[in-house]
Amino acid sequence: MTVNVPTFADIESAAAALAPYAVQTPLIENHDLNARAGGRVLLKLETLQRTGSFKFRGAFNRINRIAPSDRAKGVVAFSSGNHALGVAEAARLLSIPALIVMPHDAPASKIEGTRARGADIVFYDRVKDDREAIASRISAERGASLIRPFDDFYVVAGQGTVGLEIARAAAAKNVALDWVLAPCSGGGLIGGIALALSHLSPATRIGCVEPENYDGMGRSLAAGVRVSAPGGTLSVADALMAPTPGEVPFAIAKRLLTKTFAVCDGDLSEAVRYAARTLKLVVEPSGAAALTVLISNCFKLNGQTVAIVLSGANCDALR
Amino acid sequence: MTVNVPTFADIESAAAALAPYAVQTPLIENHDLNARAGGRVLLKLETLQRTGSFKFRGAFNRINRIAPSDRAKGVVAFSSGNHALGVAEAARLLSIPALIVMPHDAPASKIEGTRARGADIVFYDRVKDDREAIASRISAERGASLIRPFDDFYVVAGQGTVGLEIARAAAAKNVALDWVLAPCSGGGLIGGIALALSHLSPATRIGCVEPENYDGMGRSLAAGVRVSAPGGTLSVADALMAPTPGEVPFAIAKRLLTKTFAVCDGDLSEAVRYAARTLKLVVEPSGAAALTVLISNCFKLNGQTVAIVLSGANCDALR
Repeated sequence: MTVNVPTFADIESAAAALAPYAVQTPLIENHDLNARAGGRVLLKLETLQRTGSFKFRGAFNRINRIAPSDRAKGVVAFSSGNHALGVAEAARLLSIPALIVMPHDAPASKIEGTRARGADIVFYDRVKDDREAIASRISAERGASLIRPFDDFYVVAGQGTVGLEIARAAAAKNVALDWVLAPCSGGGLIGGIALALSHLSPATRIGCVEPENYDGMGRSLAAGVRVSAPGGTLSVADALMAPTPGEVPFAIAKRLLTKTFAVCDGDLSEAVRYAARTLKLVVEPSGAAALTVLISNCFKLNGQTVAIVLSGANCDALR
Repeated sequence: MTVNVPTFADIESAAAALAPYAVQTPLIENHDLNARAGGRVLLKLETLQRTGSFKFRGAFNRINRIAPSDRAKGVVAFSSGNHALGVAEAARLLSIPALIVMPHDAPASKIEGTRARGADIVFYDRVKDDREAIASRISAERGASLIRPFDDFYVVAGQGTVGLEIARAAAAKNVALDWVLAPCSGGGLIGGIALALSHLSPATRIGCVEPENYDGMGRSLAAGVRVSAPGGTLSVADALMAPTPGEVPFAIAKRLLTKTFAVCDGDLSEAVRYAARTLKLVVEPSGAAALTVLISNCFKLNGQTVAIVLSGANCDALR
């Protein structure tokens, strides 16, 4: 079966659609981090994106493609939080009703933020329930569009705008990127980034970072086919717990991903503290996954230049 | 007596000297803050500056002007923290010995950061001792250069690069600024910003924000001469406790400042929480002063556009 994968033109279209709504987030350096990592690190601050994570990009790009005649029937999504916020915000901006299926143990800030954007919420149990089945049933009943969190052509194209902005901002600074690293759950973000960089900066290698036991992308690339990570105990990275990469992201990753990392909860938490103390940035554990491999010395730069995505900031710790 | 005040050319020279060392910090927007403030707010993130505050700019620009023959004698500064960090870092980069006179109750993060940059520290008591006298005596004994925190031609020119970057980044976004607001202690930052904007965007009005009881700039502008605020109890804004504006900053402020605000500790603390929860940024209370007037509704935008400086992020709360 051939999977339909976005092209660079689809990412450019997404960027044009997002321009009036999304934040073109900064790409900055921190001298302490450069010294600690032993190279040059450019930080892509998706923590400062609308809704506090990159997820707004993919959600908006997907929802914006719904035909006018279908918009009144609304959208349905399942999400632990950041995709929920992105879908709720995009639906609000486009005046489309939204219903989100969320785990009852999602961070309170994500639940409140989703509700504050006018979306309805249906809760499920992470262990017992099949969130995808619940969302599919509701969307079938209502004729609503199901907005998948990562396994979707337009969602991947939307997340690809992160890569497009990284490549263009690095070029504007006359910086050649040896690597781009981003967190990975279902692979929508890293897939989109890999597509954008393969076009704009083909010499740049692409890596992704997953939580231990939720390293479905790493296991799938090793196996050559999509397989599931074991999962099990909850990870502190609540937004990276998809056990299996999506078909669309995996089709891209097979071709374009160079390296995967799996990180433990302790190292993720240390990266969150480092971000607050030294980078002066609020980053949620999931959003700090790529930073984690630099802080924990899993990935030694040896003078190379890397761009990493700090992908989200919706944590309860600072409330 | 005529006070020697920098020109725009001095700010441009400072920018050129700083270019290889300072972070050109982002100027970003947050949709939630725009909605809450009732206008458009551009945030200048000096929290992401080298050493975690704008103070690096002025300190570097001043220390960089020390004659080669005087450099080995070192620099001395007095500071509650952010100027200490800026001086220590600039001295380290220029291989000049530094000694900092700091209050013993300065935030631990600022003391540690100063020491980690290789500076020696002499502690004083905020209530009993005259820190300026201590620093002057030590610098006289050693022949070291005294680096004043705000009342200095080159320090003001250095801080003015914040204004230069704000004006240029706003112009690049095709945004006309109705206002620029920044925190004020001795006035070095707001003085430098006012100079830069008067050249690059003369229609922009300039305002500053001080803590209650440390509102020396507001009182001095009302009196037409430099007077001291009452001071007294410690403010949560530990970096904004200079009771009297400097001569250089006041000479500028008399000519170019439109408005001053005084804010209470409770509102400063609320702004710090808002920054962490909604803006996803670590900001120290002093650094949040300009944000405070928007959050507390002291300053109603009514559709206007304002750039505000988030000036520092070296707080202990997140450690």
